[in-house]
This record gives sequence, C-alpha cells and structure tokens, in this order.
Amino acid sequence: MAPLAGVERFSRAVFLASGADEATADAATRAMLHASRLGVDSHGIRLLDHYVTAIAGGRVNGRPTLRFEEDGGAVCRLNADHAHGALATYRAMDRAIELADRFGIGAVSIRDSSHFGAAGAYALHAAGRGFIGLAVCNSDSFVRLHDGASRFHGTNPIAFGVPVSGDNPWLLDMATSAIPYNRVKLYESLARPLPEGTASDAHGIDTTHPSEAEMLAPLGAAFGFKGAGLAGLVEILSAVLSGMTLSFDILPMGGPDMATPRGLGAFVLAMKPGAFVPEETFNAGMARYLEGLRTSPARAGTQVLAPGDREWQVAALRDRDGIPLDPATLQAFHRFAERHGIPLPFEE
Amino acid sequence: MAPLAGVERFSRAVFLASGADEATADAATRAMLHASRLGVDSHGIRLLDHYVTAIAGGRVNGRPTLRFEEDGGAVCRLNADHAHGALATYRAMDRAIELADRFGIGAVSIRDSSHFGAAGAYALHAAGRGFIGLAVCNSDSFVRLHDGASRFHGTNPIAFGVPVSGDNPWLLDMATSAIPYNRVKLYESLARPLPEGTASDAHGIDTTHPSEAEMLAPLGAAFGFKGAGLAGLVEILSAVLSGMTLSFDILPMGGPDMATPRGLGAFVLAMKPGAFVPEETFNAGMARYLEGLRTSPARAGTQVLAPGDREWQVAALRDRDGIPLDPATLQAFHRFAERHGIPLPFEE
Repeated sequence: MAPLAGVERFSRAVFLASGADEATADAATRAMLHASRLGVDSHGIRLLDHYVTAIAGGRVNGRPTLRFEEDGGAVCRLNADHAHGALATYRAMDRAIELADRFGIGAVSIRDSSHFGAAGAYALHAAGRGFIGLAVCNSDSFVRLHDGASRFHGTNPIAFGVPVSGDNPWLLDMATSAIPYNRVKLYESLARPLPEGTASDAHGIDTTHPSEAEMLAPLGAAFGFKGAGLAGLVEILSAVLSGMTLSFDILPMGGPDMATPRGLGAFVLAMKPGAFVPEETFNAGMARYLEGLRTSPARAGTQVLAPGDREWQVAALRDRDGIPLDPATLQAFHRFAERHGIPLPFEE
Repeated sequence: MAPLAGVERFSRAVFLASGADEATADAATRAMLHASRLGVDSHGIRLLDHYVTAIAGGRVNGRPTLRFEEDGGAVCRLNADHAHGALATYRAMDRAIELADRFGIGAVSIRDSSHFGAAGAYALHAAGRGFIGLAVCNSDSFVRLHDGASRFHGTNPIAFGVPVSGDNPWLLDMATSAIPYNRVKLYESLARPLPEGTASDAHGIDTTHPSEAEMLAPLGAAFGFKGAGLAGLVEILSAVLSGMTLSFDILPMGGPDMATPRGLGAFVLAMKPGAFVPEETFNAGMARYLEGLRTSPARAGTQVLAPGDREWQVAALRDRDGIPLDPATLQAFHRFAERHGIPLPFEE
C-alpha cells in the first residue's frame, strides 16, 4: 500500500520529468487519484505508465494550448489541442460551472481531447462545488449492439454527480456495457464463469466462458436495446456534437500507434440547483430521498446503497491505509524512480 | 382497427365534452396518439378513459393556468397548476427549445404536473424542431433497488431524441426498470415465464413466475445498481429539482383517490446542435453513426436497429391500417359516444 499524498507527489513529478506542463501533471494526477481513492483501480494510478508513454509518443500533447470558443450563450466549445483528457475535462467542467452559475445551466463540448479516465471525476468536481454535474465520453469499440455480432460502441460511461448538503455527493459512474472489460480478464485469470448475458463470442452469441468473450454485451441482457441506446446517447453527445471520432473509428487505447492523436470528443454539463428550486427545498429533497433509500428494506444478507456509498467506504479506508499498487504498476514506479531520480512514495 | 385521424378527433371531442379546455384536449390527445402510433399501446389511447376520470375527479385540472417563472437565464420553472402532464410537458419543451435557440441549451423543471404518458413524445417534439431533447419523469413506486426488497423507484423513464437530417429522428424512450409492469401482466395472462432477473417476489428475490412478481427489478440484472442509479438520476431531476413528490410518496396512478392532485414533477432539456458544432458536421456525424449502426453485423436471425427504428416501422403500418383498440378501450369509446353524442371513429 502506498499513501495517497505520496503517490500524488510521485505522479506529478513523473509527469513533469516527462515533459508535461504543470496543468497536465496536476489534472492527470488528480483524475487517477480520484479513481484510485474510490476503488476504481482500472482507471487509477496504474494508468500513469500509459499516459507518460502517450505523451512521449506524441499521441497526447503534454503542453497544450486550450482554447474556448463561445457565442455568449450557456454553451461553449473547447478545442483541447490534444491535451490529456483530464486537463481538458476538468477545464471544461469549470467553464460549465461558470456558465451554470450565470445561466442556471451550462454545457461544454470538447474536441481533440484524449482518454479522460474515470468519468466520475468530473461529475464529482461539479458536485463538490454545489452543482449537478454530468460527464460522458465515448471510447474505442468493445461492446456489441443489441442483436449485434461485432464490437460497435465503446464502454461509453455516464457519470452524474449531485451535491448533498452535509454529506458526500450522490455519485453515479457507470459504463453502458453490461460489465467492464477488465472484469472479463479478471474472471479469466480466476477461471470463473461470467454472469449470464454480459459477454458474447465472435458470433455475438452470449457466453459465460471468459476465454470465448470477444465483445461485451450492452447493459440490460434480454433488454440490451436499453444499454445500447444509452451508449448511443453518449456517442452522440461526445462524438457527434463535437465533430469527433465515433467509437468504431477510434484508434485502440493500447496502441501500437502511440504517436497519432485519437481525436476524442467528450461532453460535460452543469446545473445550479438553486436556479430551479430554492436551495433549502433541494437539500431537503435530497435528504429525504437518501434517507428513504438507505432505510429501504434489503434482501436477506445484503445492504441497500446509494450510488457512491460503496466508493465513499473504500475512500475512507484508502485515506487511512493508502492504495494498492499492482505488480506492473509497482515495476513502472521503480523504473520512473530510477530514470528521473524521484523518491518512491512508499518504503520498500 | 381505428384510423388515427378519427381517433384524434374523437379523443379531442371527449376531452372538450368532459370539461377540459382546448389546450388540454390537444396536448393529451397528441401524447396518446404519439404512443398509439409508435406501438407503445400501454401509453396510447387506452389512457383516455383514465384521463377523463382524473379530470372529472379533480386530480387533474382540465382548465389550468400555466405559469412560467424565469430569472433571465437558460432555465426556468413551470408551475403547471395540476394540468394534464402532456400539456405541461409540451409547453415546457417549447420553452426549453426557445431557450436553447437563444442560449444553445435550455432546461425547464415542471412542478404540480400529472401523468405525462410516453416520455418519448416530448423528446420527439424537440427533435422534430431540430433540437436534441431530453424528457424524464418519476412515477409511483414499482421497482426495487439493487439488493432492495420493496418497491422504491417508479419505472422512471428516460427519453432522448436527436434530429437526423432527411430521416426520422433517433429516439430512445426507455423505462429504467428491467421490463415494463405491463409485460408482467401480459406474461401472466399468457402463462409464460418472465425473462431472468426482471421481477422479484415480496422478499426481493428474483422470480420468473409472473404471479409471484411483487416488484420489478432495476435494469441490469446482476448489475442492477446501474438501472437503480439511472432511476435515481430521473428521480433527482424530476422530483428533487422541482420540489415535488418522490416516487415512494406518490399516490397510485390507478386510484382509488382520483380527487387529490399527485404533485408530479418532471424535467425537460433541449440543446441546439448548431451551438456546439457546425450543423453540416453534426448532420454528417449522425449519418455516419447511423449508417455504421444499421450495417453492423447482426446475430444470426436478427436485425440491428437504431433506437426508434422499430417504432417508425410500426408507425408506417398504423398510418396505413389504423390503431388497434383493446376491449376495455372499445367499451369506453362506446360509453363516451353515447354519453356525449360523439360519432365513433370507426365503422361498427
């Protein structure tokens, strides 16, 4: 386990030593630490090595010039100059919040961005400032359509964060696929069968054998047209509304081409609760909703949780104990420490 | 089968004869005909009898005074004076479109509304005018939480419509439950087992026996936290952001109390594509996305469809052949015809 503050310092130093500017180092580190802290390790600090490689290769611009284009309304466009997706998206959400503070609502479409990590980071950013936040992004194809037999959409996440007075925000961060691709890989290594209706073989036929899984199913199993529809909503907001690349045209995240920018779009939206209803009414409504939810009867042996509750529990533990580093990430940390002379953030 | 135009005239005449004003008669009829035309019969003309009863009982105000409250931003609040939900929501979407035309985006929270029928009607209304439209509404509790053992959320639909140049709009209209409650009732009458993971017994345990189904499961089966999270998103936008009634506090749609207004909230949002990206870029993006989708390989014996495609196929048939009337609705039509001296819209 490595302490969060130490990992944060280490990550920033690695970005700076790799040629990234301060803003990139800060934003990318913050997004990864968001995920690591809340237990979303797939999008956590393990991505440091990938991001540094993408900057070194030229896919991601480590010293970008971000340009906002506005027409005086409640929306604007961000040309991200192939920035790290976290820098582009935090900046876009900041602008959406400013617009929402003035107009009640604000939205920003982002063009020429790159992988932004966990969508929840940006929804939470808004909620932490007292705004409702939405963040979506499409990604390279992994998920079949309903009745489809090839990869079509990305896992196209939807994140939605809502401020809760005196408590952690309500935070939903979900892929529109039935399961994450990393889960398939995990079950393969554990030799466990997959849940029904979550992955398909090369013919689009459902399989519970991880080794046969060629694509993910959309959320909803027999009603997968809903998951596919939600993935489409994300695709339209992220890629069509920004004029960027559709999932089936996006270069694979893992390479081998790490030089060509991937042309990712994304979309963020913020709303000011007080523009719709008196703030005390909003706060009372969220409190009553969450109390009703958390005291709702559970199935035997289970517990009912609000979106984000599990993540806040993990965050409390990790604030105390630090975050786990998988073997490949540990190895990368050692390599960075040696290459750049940066002290490791844990005792060996 | 009854021709659409005739049913439309009949429905309007019944509303007017029942004391509703022109605006209510128009909007409620239009929303029901939207559903009947697209094959969503649960929300179609069969609701006429229910709506007239609700107006007669006082639950719904057939001659409301709608009041918009604005602060000059891109959002506003609609006090619907317990209007029919269709009137309130069409008006709200019209206002959202005006705001989006000016600010790029516009949102309206609706208070003191009532049942609005198919959410897709309002998303389609926006798309038909060249705007991206979102409409959501919570409803009385039918759906358990993930790991929950009691009804908590309503079926809380999400509708999203997107204009497509030279083609029908892209239209998603989905409940956030695994299946509609009407499907359970249908399968019960057909003595067919339910799909896995769609309904639960009184203890929240999954059942495939329709007669044991006490509540619906949230979309996602083993990953039902996603469906429950989306239902929560709808709940927050519809009820919390309007200061209205949460699902678990809403009076049952079916009565017996048809006198007390139900205090429903709803939320609509519109966006102007041209505010985010040149219109020709947007149109080209939608065309490429839909072409990719519709030519994507399908599983053997199936066809890949975009959201709305199945509905447009049904609409084409029903434009030609008319809409089916179930026995109870047919009976109600005869009752209305006799009571008010209105000619039936079909030959007997």
